[in-house]
Amino acid sequence: MRKYSTKFKTKNLLIGLDNKPKNFVIDINGIKIAGKNFIVIAGPCAAESKNQLLSTARAVKKSGANVFRAGLFKPRTSPYNFGGLGEKGLELLKLVKEQTGLPIITEAMSLEQLNLVSDFADIIQIGSRNMYNYPLLIAAGKQKKPVLLKRGFSATIEELLLAAEYIASQGNKKIILCERGIRTFADYTRNTLDLSAVPILKKLTYLPVIVDPSHATGQRELIEPLSLAGAACGADGLMVEVHNCPEKALSDGQQSLSFKEFKRLMKKIKKIIKALKNPK
Amino acid sequence: MRKYSTKFKTKNLLIGLDNKPKNFVIDINGIKIAGKNFIVIAGPCAAESKNQLLSTARAVKKSGANVFRAGLFKPRTSPYNFGGLGEKGLELLKLVKEQTGLPIITEAMSLEQLNLVSDFADIIQIGSRNMYNYPLLIAAGKQKKPVLLKRGFSATIEELLLAAEYIASQGNKKIILCERGIRTFADYTRNTLDLSAVPILKKLTYLPVIVDPSHATGQRELIEPLSLAGAACGADGLMVEVHNCPEKALSDGQQSLSFKEFKRLMKKIKKIIKALKNPK
Amino acid sequence: MRKYSTKFKTKNLLIGLDNKPKNFVIDINGIKIAGKNFIVIAGPCAAESKNQLLSTARAVKKSGANVFRAGLFKPRTSPYNFGGLGEKGLELLKLVKEQTGLPIITEAMSLEQLNLVSDFADIIQIGSRNMYNYPLLIAAGKQKKPVLLKRGFSATIEELLLAAEYIASQGNKKIILCERGIRTFADYTRNTLDLSAVPILKKLTYLPVIVDPSHATGQRELIEPLSLAGAACGADGLMVEVHNCPEKALSDGQQSLSFKEFKRLMKKIKKIIKALKNPK
Amino acid sequence: MRKYSTKFKTKNLLIGLDNKPKNFVIDINGIKIAGKNFIVIAGPCAAESKNQLLSTARAVKKSGANVFRAGLFKPRTSPYNFGGLGEKGLELLKLVKEQTGLPIITEAMSLEQLNLVSDFADIIQIGSRNMYNYPLLIAAGKQKKPVLLKRGFSATIEELLLAAEYIASQGNKKIILCERGIRTFADYTRNTLDLSAVPILKKLTYLPVIVDPSHATGQRELIEPLSLAGAACGADGLMVEVHNCPEKALSDGQQSLSFKEFKRLMKKIKKIIKALKNPK
Repeated sequence: MRKYSTKFKTKNLLIGLDNKPKNFVIDINGIKIAGKNFIVIAGPCAAESKNQLLSTARAVKKSGANVFRAGLFKPRTSPYNFGGLGEKGLELLKLVKEQTGLPIITEAMSLEQLNLVSDFADIIQIGSRNMYNYPLLIAAGKQKKPVLLKRGFSATIEELLLAAEYIASQGNKKIILCERGIRTFADYTRNTLDLSAVPILKKLTYLPVIVDPSHATGQRELIEPLSLAGAACGADGLMVEVHNCPEKALSDGQQSLSFKEFKRLMKKIKKIIKALKNPK
Repeated sequence: MRKYSTKFKTKNLLIGLDNKPKNFVIDINGIKIAGKNFIVIAGPCAAESKNQLLSTARAVKKSGANVFRAGLFKPRTSPYNFGGLGEKGLELLKLVKEQTGLPIITEAMSLEQLNLVSDFADIIQIGSRNMYNYPLLIAAGKQKKPVLLKRGFSATIEELLLAAEYIASQGNKKIILCERGIRTFADYTRNTLDLSAVPILKKLTYLPVIVDPSHATGQRELIEPLSLAGAACGADGLMVEVHNCPEKALSDGQQSLSFKEFKRLMKKIKKIIKALKNPK
Repeated sequence: MRKYSTKFKTKNLLIGLDNKPKNFVIDINGIKIAGKNFIVIAGPCAAESKNQLLSTARAVKKSGANVFRAGLFKPRTSPYNFGGLGEKGLELLKLVKEQTGLPIITEAMSLEQLNLVSDFADIIQIGSRNMYNYPLLIAAGKQKKPVLLKRGFSATIEELLLAAEYIASQGNKKIILCERGIRTFADYTRNTLDLSAVPILKKLTYLPVIVDPSHATGQRELIEPLSLAGAACGADGLMVEVHNCPEKALSDGQQSLSFKEFKRLMKKIKKIIKALKNPK
Repeated sequence: MRKYSTKFKTKNLLIGLDNKPKNFVIDINGIKIAGKNFIVIAGPCAAESKNQLLSTARAVKKSGANVFRAGLFKPRTSPYNFGGLGEKGLELLKLVKEQTGLPIITEAMSLEQLNLVSDFADIIQIGSRNMYNYPLLIAAGKQKKPVLLKRGFSATIEELLLAAEYIASQGNKKIILCERGIRTFADYTRNTLDLSAVPILKKLTYLPVIVDPSHATGQRELIEPLSLAGAACGADGLMVEVHNCPEKALSDGQQSLSFKEFKRLMKKIKKIIKALKNPK
């Protein structure tokens, strides 16, 4: 059998479980993460239009989502693909926040973008492709907004935790880790969701851990079962793509839930959470 | 992003979802699999002694396991490792069945072993290393006992289903599929449990699908959370290693649950199953 | 960075470099492998017809091949694909040997097939899918013909060497190891040829190591450059698929060389071998 | 077998083979890359001291290296590891260039570092961890120095070529691609060197392709055989770590060649190159 190693220790790391700051909690406009709450981040892959954003934000809020996601800057494999509305979308996201009260998470891929979004966003996302972008991690550690750090799609647990340590080493411990699938030989899904990461990370760090089944699978119909699995194995929350019209999405449409599908998912998630809290 | 393909279809396969035989069910001494039951297969990796087998079988039965597992022939990476009791263990497994009433599953790695165990075992296991052993699959299809087919640790979904088709093509459709982790770059676990396989297989075949978190993770403390995840994403059952004294097990001790741990797991599993069945 | 381990030692193994038998050599009808010779095994994936076999054998011999390959029993992913001529092809292979004088290598997937082919074949091939088939390895170790053991497409170096040890432990040390590509995320080739395996194996064992670029890449035009690379990094030989009419091959046509392509390859291979032997 | 796809086409890309600019060549202070020359880039992983840099540069030049490599900014998995001399090392590299005449290549991980090094370096390196750092690629495309783009350790061929296209789309086509190993399950080497990338890239682009066996393998003794393999399969050059005292290197010592080992390597490389150019 192949060698594996559980020897990586976090005792000497700021983010290590043993070094949990007293009363550690990440507070997003009153929503407390990393305590007993299960948070759900939902919204489209990319911000496209006012109508798309507002209708989606209202729908996901109604079904129980806590945070709204939408990308302004999209890392795309090809330079010729839609790369997001960029700065122009900023006003739209502010409008969503104003009208729905939902906190906003959006991605930054460079120091310049980080400066731009850290002003108004409630959580800064550092995407999978940038988990090894150490200058960006350091900059994220120097600002004050909470950071959602996605696991690189080829990152080991150790590398993910040390990437978080880069951020923490600059003073910002408000870090949410996110498992979003790893690259393997398996060719039926976009990536392979590695749910073992959830309980492993829980052993090693006090940082909250959420699961993103949308990017992991790339397939709408797999999102509900894997979201339920994520909740069952101890994740602190979910990040799910929802679109007002998945067939017409400018990116990731095939992995976005419709409003109706999201509503059904939320109903089931609540059952799982409740069942596991129930002492009997 | 990497290419992936959901184009594999099972319409022309005996095991394809569209070709489900009327009233398909796998009946193991009265225990019905692939209907609405959630089955739990538990027991040690390898049969070692009468006391080990009987005490473990009684304990797992008491906690709610439906089937007892124990290997007589163990595929070991090195020719110099303990390879199982072999034929000598056969009488011990018969004794367990007699005294506890639990159906028995055990592995066969060759035609010779298949002949030997198919007489008395209630389910024949074909292990991960033998998923591509086509002569063995064909022989398993020619006998009448149900077959538990484990996914090769590097097998795609398509290859797993076609391996099942090898068995079915010989007349035996009593096949249980088992996701047990795939080999990836991730080095904190023995393998990476690919839970997306569960809902994918459910789309493509009517065969029941169970999850083995013991071999997938190689770590005792990950088994409970991943078992719950497996149940939450729609698996028909679990296969879990349990040992009367994990520290002294001749193989796989570090991934075996104690009786107490197994009992706690079963309690939580029931909550998940109940929560998901509850219509409200 | 990811952990890796060079700790695996072969001191206590029969096949370990330190335990090389005096004057170890594998002699195939006078062709000595594992000495200073570079051997080339060539031929079609599967035996199809008398004309195909004879014309190909003559062509590859003329270009300098030492051994003829052709499968009678083909492990195919689907039970409905062409599985080889089976026993019927046996007489054809004998005819090739008679008429060309080339030694024959062919694959066995079960004990039954092993008995059948070990009578007349000069080398028994154990394929990638059967590297973990321990009963088959043991049987191959009990007979006297040299064995070509292909690395499982997901096997570590340690697992490959221990599979060889299974054979050696039964008394047969005439084992040729073969690197034929591993399964990775990379999706442009069928597998990823791991040429680092060649110098690694050379450090750990005295067994000869050859390279199969046909199965590794699945693409005709990659075979020449990777064959040259294999020769340059110290392999003892090559195994290459050649077909009289690649477009019409019943299996693996897209990765088979034409006679002309094989001739050109052999010419270049000889240059590399000569350059590396040249002391100046 | 697993699906693979050779369908990716580069016809519509600036870097596509069909769109090769007339008389395309990358000229580094008179050294022409991508013509018929085989270039060797050598030097330590990180710049450490004046003595280390000068002695190494002189030694590699004497053995035939064309370009000197040394990192000022080192991407390290842990924030607590040696991260390079940074800006302080700049003067040292200028000194090396002055005294040896060797062109210099060094890495930039951010726009700030890019500005700093593009002034004096002859080639800008974009490392494996930054292959998906699109803002950095765009910035590298806007400046005029040649860029060495390393394949991400989990990047497909398509992703590598599209990353190069990001650079080219900004006007800079002086791009050298570098295969440096991919992340796989194999655990004996740091990464798995994917030499099939060399002939594949040659089919798809006119950009030169070099091989870095040091990072791929992480082991000194594998560097020579894999360098020879790289040359044999058609690479345009090599990038090799050499250190005046590998045992004392502040990073990557175990994969650095000594001066003597590098000299021997260069001698053998020349033989391979000569053999393959020889028309007879």
